[in-house]
Amino acid sequence: MNHISWQTNAIELLDQRLLPQRVEMVRCATVGEVVAAIRSMVVRGAPAIGCTAAYGMVIAAQETAGLPSPMALKRLAEAKHELDAARPTAVNLAWATQRMLLFAAEFTAQHSGLQTNTELAIALLGEAHAIMAEDLAMCQAIGSHGAPLIPVGGRVLTHCNAGGLATAGYGTALAPIRTAHAAGRSIHVWVDETRPYLQGARLTAYELQQDQIPLTLITDSMAAYFMQQGQVDCIIVGADRVVANGDIANKIGTYGLAVLARAHGIPFYVAAPTSTIDLALPNGSAIPIEQRSSAEVTHMSGVQIAPDGVHAAHPAFDITPHHLISALITERGVVYAPYDTSLTAVMNCEPATKSVNMA
Amino acid sequence: MNHISWQTNAIELLDQRLLPQRVEMVRCATVGEVVAAIRSMVVRGAPAIGCTAAYGMVIAAQETAGLPSPMALKRLAEAKHELDAARPTAVNLAWATQRMLLFAAEFTAQHSGLQTNTELAIALLGEAHAIMAEDLAMCQAIGSHGAPLIPVGGRVLTHCNAGGLATAGYGTALAPIRTAHAAGRSIHVWVDETRPYLQGARLTAYELQQDQIPLTLITDSMAAYFMQQGQVDCIIVGADRVVANGDIANKIGTYGLAVLARAHGIPFYVAAPTSTIDLALPNGSAIPIEQRSSAEVTHMSGVQIAPDGVHAAHPAFDITPHHLISALITERGVVYAPYDTSLTAVMNCEPATKSVNMA
Repeated sequence: MNHISWQTNAIELLDQRLLPQRVEMVRCATVGEVVAAIRSMVVRGAPAIGCTAAYGMVIAAQETAGLPSPMALKRLAEAKHELDAARPTAVNLAWATQRMLLFAAEFTAQHSGLQTNTELAIALLGEAHAIMAEDLAMCQAIGSHGAPLIPVGGRVLTHCNAGGLATAGYGTALAPIRTAHAAGRSIHVWVDETRPYLQGARLTAYELQQDQIPLTLITDSMAAYFMQQGQVDCIIVGADRVVANGDIANKIGTYGLAVLARAHGIPFYVAAPTSTIDLALPNGSAIPIEQRSSAEVTHMSGVQIAPDGVHAAHPAFDITPHHLISALITERGVVYAPYDTSLTAVMNCEPATKSVNMA
Repeated sequence: MNHISWQTNAIELLDQRLLPQRVEMVRCATVGEVVAAIRSMVVRGAPAIGCTAAYGMVIAAQETAGLPSPMALKRLAEAKHELDAARPTAVNLAWATQRMLLFAAEFTAQHSGLQTNTELAIALLGEAHAIMAEDLAMCQAIGSHGAPLIPVGGRVLTHCNAGGLATAGYGTALAPIRTAHAAGRSIHVWVDETRPYLQGARLTAYELQQDQIPLTLITDSMAAYFMQQGQVDCIIVGADRVVANGDIANKIGTYGLAVLARAHGIPFYVAAPTSTIDLALPNGSAIPIEQRSSAEVTHMSGVQIAPDGVHAAHPAFDITPHHLISALITERGVVYAPYDTSLTAVMNCEPATKSVNMA
């Protein structure tokens, strides 16, 4: 699935808004086009946005051809600012643009006066490719660490799309599912459709179907019913941001699932690479929650579902407090409470507590 | 809102599947057409289905013109069976057809050999009209009993449509809201859109807007978020069946709301007329849960939202256990736990415990 690919001077993005009905690519050749693609959700999912923004910084560097180095760096800082503003909740976006900006500053300092901006752009492209490759490897490691958490014959519920389409590939929440399935283990996935944007129905169902992993689609409101029936063994979701105390931001509806999981004694796991961890924020209340348009709720695929003039709320994310999270699955291992110490440890590359690898 | 109206030899039903885009009536002139209208959800909502089925029994009586009395009664019993099978979960349907059948048997016995089936049909029409009028009065009484439970400035969350369209008029869950609003009290309603059939977005939002009651539409997955934010003061839902121990069946998603309400310390009320109470069943596990088609989840207003070949589960209802219910609001008063005794008391017309009337 080449849903984010570099094509000489532009990014080509699979338009996730049109899946599963149509498979079309959107070409972004300017920073403004990259910003628009992220904002309008041509591409979505915290890691995938980070990868896309990294390539956006390459485009920004290309746009500085002929400028002196200080002005080129100034333009890159502006581009970072524009890209970061496209969506406020996920931390990977600012993480990726910051990494690209620092890389550019170091490259410029090391090659002071000697390099052209074309060389800078080429070097930045290498860095963006590295971010993509690292993201894929991170997802695969999340799969290895997370798969043992799924019980044999496990019926896993997931929300939104934290799959290959939300990352460079392989996914975060879907990674343990993919790894368990690839190991020949019996598995069944309950896919929350995830209103209002239907990432579950459109994207997660599509990905699992492509990989021939058994699934049943449900409306978000059915999750509690199947928990009550004893038909959900664990829940695995992704995260757009994990903060110092272990609180997480993820797609609207995640918090409710976590409360329901606790009430039913079902483990609730969050799969996220360490690039999603933001130790600068003390707790979830500091995470900005993006408020999107009412029309995305009142209209579906162009069809109006509510009367004219009815206003809908549309918080795109919610905060799940750490005490409802059974464990965080990172590429460095499985992290357990108390998160205020275990997250710092995992960020400092120390072995995560109780981490296990699949045999 | 004449959404169920008798027109000489037929019922005219407002086609609730088309709201809010189109206001069209469906004419049912045979029992088969009434069954089809109930099954396909032209009309929905437990009390409204009961009223419709009562008129369906009038049509059945009209169809017996010329038959001897015993055969007419046999035909009415068959019609009851056909109507009852249209939807299995709500008790009002069987309650209304049973009342009509008993009425027919008594009328036939009292007028033995003297009456024609035309006279029987006319008498049954009076009984169906009485069921409609009683339902409207019941809803208004539910409003009077329930309104004091809503705190001043109350922000009430409701699920599905337990409004005028789900009853003869005025509604069950919406009745306390209407009564409080009519009394000049400030009120705001969070309307769950209620996937998959969107009764909240299409019907409840429509009704509240018509009555100029302030509302905000939300996806079902947002309810927990607004509870967490302290923006929900109470939840009021309807019920399709209330059984002896106080367990209730209601639209899928209700159970999850009740669990979330408990976790947030928010009162969870169920508004239902006594015709919805079925003391014959000991607890919720005995209530049949209607399983509807996958296509109603994978398609919305004719638009496909999931990939070809993806199967969706579609339990149309869920069971909320009595221990999560703060009170039941009936037309005879507010009923509190222990429900095994208070429900028997209210069915025997004794005053409900702790019942209060609005000043």
